[in-house]
Amino acid sequence: MTVNILFAASGDSWAAYREPLTRALAEAGIDARLAPEMAPDEVDYIVYSPNDGPDDFGPFTRAKAVLSLWAGVERIVGNSTLTQPLVRMVDEEGLTRGMTEWVTGHVLRHHLGMDAHIVNPDRVWNHAPPPLAQDRTVAVLGLGALGAACATALARIGFDVRGWSNSPKDLPDITCRHGAEGLGPTLDGAEIVVLLLPGTPATENVIDAAALDRMAPGACLLNPGRGTLIDDDALLAALDDGRAGHATLDVFRTEPLPADHPYWAHPRVTVTPHVAAETRPATAARVIAENVRRGEAGEPLLHLVDRAAGY
Amino acid sequence: MTVNILFAASGDSWAAYREPLTRALAEAGIDARLAPEMAPDEVDYIVYSPNDGPDDFGPFTRAKAVLSLWAGVERIVGNSTLTQPLVRMVDEEGLTRGMTEWVTGHVLRHHLGMDAHIVNPDRVWNHAPPPLAQDRTVAVLGLGALGAACATALARIGFDVRGWSNSPKDLPDITCRHGAEGLGPTLDGAEIVVLLLPGTPATENVIDAAALDRMAPGACLLNPGRGTLIDDDALLAALDDGRAGHATLDVFRTEPLPADHPYWAHPRVTVTPHVAAETRPATAARVIAENVRRGEAGEPLLHLVDRAAGY
Repeated sequence: MTVNILFAASGDSWAAYREPLTRALAEAGIDARLAPEMAPDEVDYIVYSPNDGPDDFGPFTRAKAVLSLWAGVERIVGNSTLTQPLVRMVDEEGLTRGMTEWVTGHVLRHHLGMDAHIVNPDRVWNHAPPPLAQDRTVAVLGLGALGAACATALARIGFDVRGWSNSPKDLPDITCRHGAEGLGPTLDGAEIVVLLLPGTPATENVIDAAALDRMAPGACLLNPGRGTLIDDDALLAALDDGRAGHATLDVFRTEPLPADHPYWAHPRVTVTPHVAAETRPATAARVIAENVRRGEAGEPLLHLVDRAAGY
Repeated sequence: MTVNILFAASGDSWAAYREPLTRALAEAGIDARLAPEMAPDEVDYIVYSPNDGPDDFGPFTRAKAVLSLWAGVERIVGNSTLTQPLVRMVDEEGLTRGMTEWVTGHVLRHHLGMDAHIVNPDRVWNHAPPPLAQDRTVAVLGLGALGAACATALARIGFDVRGWSNSPKDLPDITCRHGAEGLGPTLDGAEIVVLLLPGTPATENVIDAAALDRMAPGACLLNPGRGTLIDDDALLAALDDGRAGHATLDVFRTEPLPADHPYWAHPRVTVTPHVAAETRPATAARVIAENVRRGEAGEPLLHLVDRAAGY
């Protein structure tokens, strides 16, 4: 029997989700009618965005669940017309995988010295093969879900990986240190440093002049974590005099990065526009499809919101 | 007891090998004196390059072996003064690992759309996260030692990998096809295509206009294999009209690539100067150190040359 799914989110979201959600529903074996508009009394499931979704759920008399596209449900959780089960989006697969791909790609980019080939205005044939990954020291600061996944992926490729975290961790093939006294030895001589710490008062400016001085001369810094982890003035000074070789930054204290920020113009900085980790339609669509499948099969829904707790 | 090792190769090689070979010897537990010049009658092992090594091995009265830095030993194998065992360099570890790193790095570069961030003269904050690797189709043509290693590494990262080879292969998590009839389906809709076929009459121009037309519109082509695999005119035509999105080429029919070759100037081509696979000092040094260790321990040497066969 056809399952009617209302996609109650804005035009941009519909454009991004239409194809992956159609595919995910088909792969989940669901005979679905998916549309951005639909008579309320025909709707079986509502895919919901806080900006565009309905305010009154009363007319959706046969809807079996409201499936939020977003993790935060604070705008809907108190809606008194909402009597259907509400689930929030948890896209661990997409977020962790995307982050691992961004970190692995940019570590390999710096390791291989790609920029000299991508930007080569003089067309110089400079035959200088890079060392192997096993002879390249990479430090990953932060060993939570994202940091551990990235450190593990880098070790699997062959890099000499060290990790540092607040509390003790034990990861195969990675030299793990922790606490204040573990940071210096983790940075000593590291050629590529990846920041995946949470943004807290304790981690603010963890990359300061002293930290930069402990890295290998010409080290590359990758920050897909939080903008507050870096003392921006100290980093710019280290880049100016070559102590730091390059910084590839995905997060900033102010986003979008202001047009006059020195990071944009610095020849040793690459700005990526907060793309390292993202809830992604391709994986989020699979989470939605799985919940529709569960709803139709009478199985418990994933990521069901506790209306009393509010999340 | 100190082992005396003469490094009889040119200044460039000495600069490249001095540190890794010193380290590899120490790691192998050998108390070595390593130098580019040494009295012949003190020498225990000769590290040899065909361009710079001795012509007369007679004065090396106590030398236990000649360890070639190169795989090809045709210039020395017939030398009648050479009475010591001769071994050639086989750096499988460095060659395969280096190739895998280059391919993985450049596939991730194209997958993540890095170039738009590395070269961003307008300083545009364009928040457009890429798809996940699992939604990106990569075709690897050639599944020998190098191709199989690269395809496996890409599948491990999560890419949707297809492989094609002359004879049937079976690799985990990779859709393998073979023979003339398998090529088209392998290329159909592939977004990133990696060439790791051998250079033979059968593979010449395997990437021609018809092959380029089967790939996804805007596909990226990576060639770390052989220059002859590509019909250069067909590739340039496809790049000109956007059917092909980018080509990253490491090998060419003529090397170094001539200064007036259109590949240098094309905005959709990246030239890397034959750096994808290389005998590398770091790993080659370990092969040399292992052979010195074996020689001192009275164990059989690795990669011993059969003087009659000539290799």
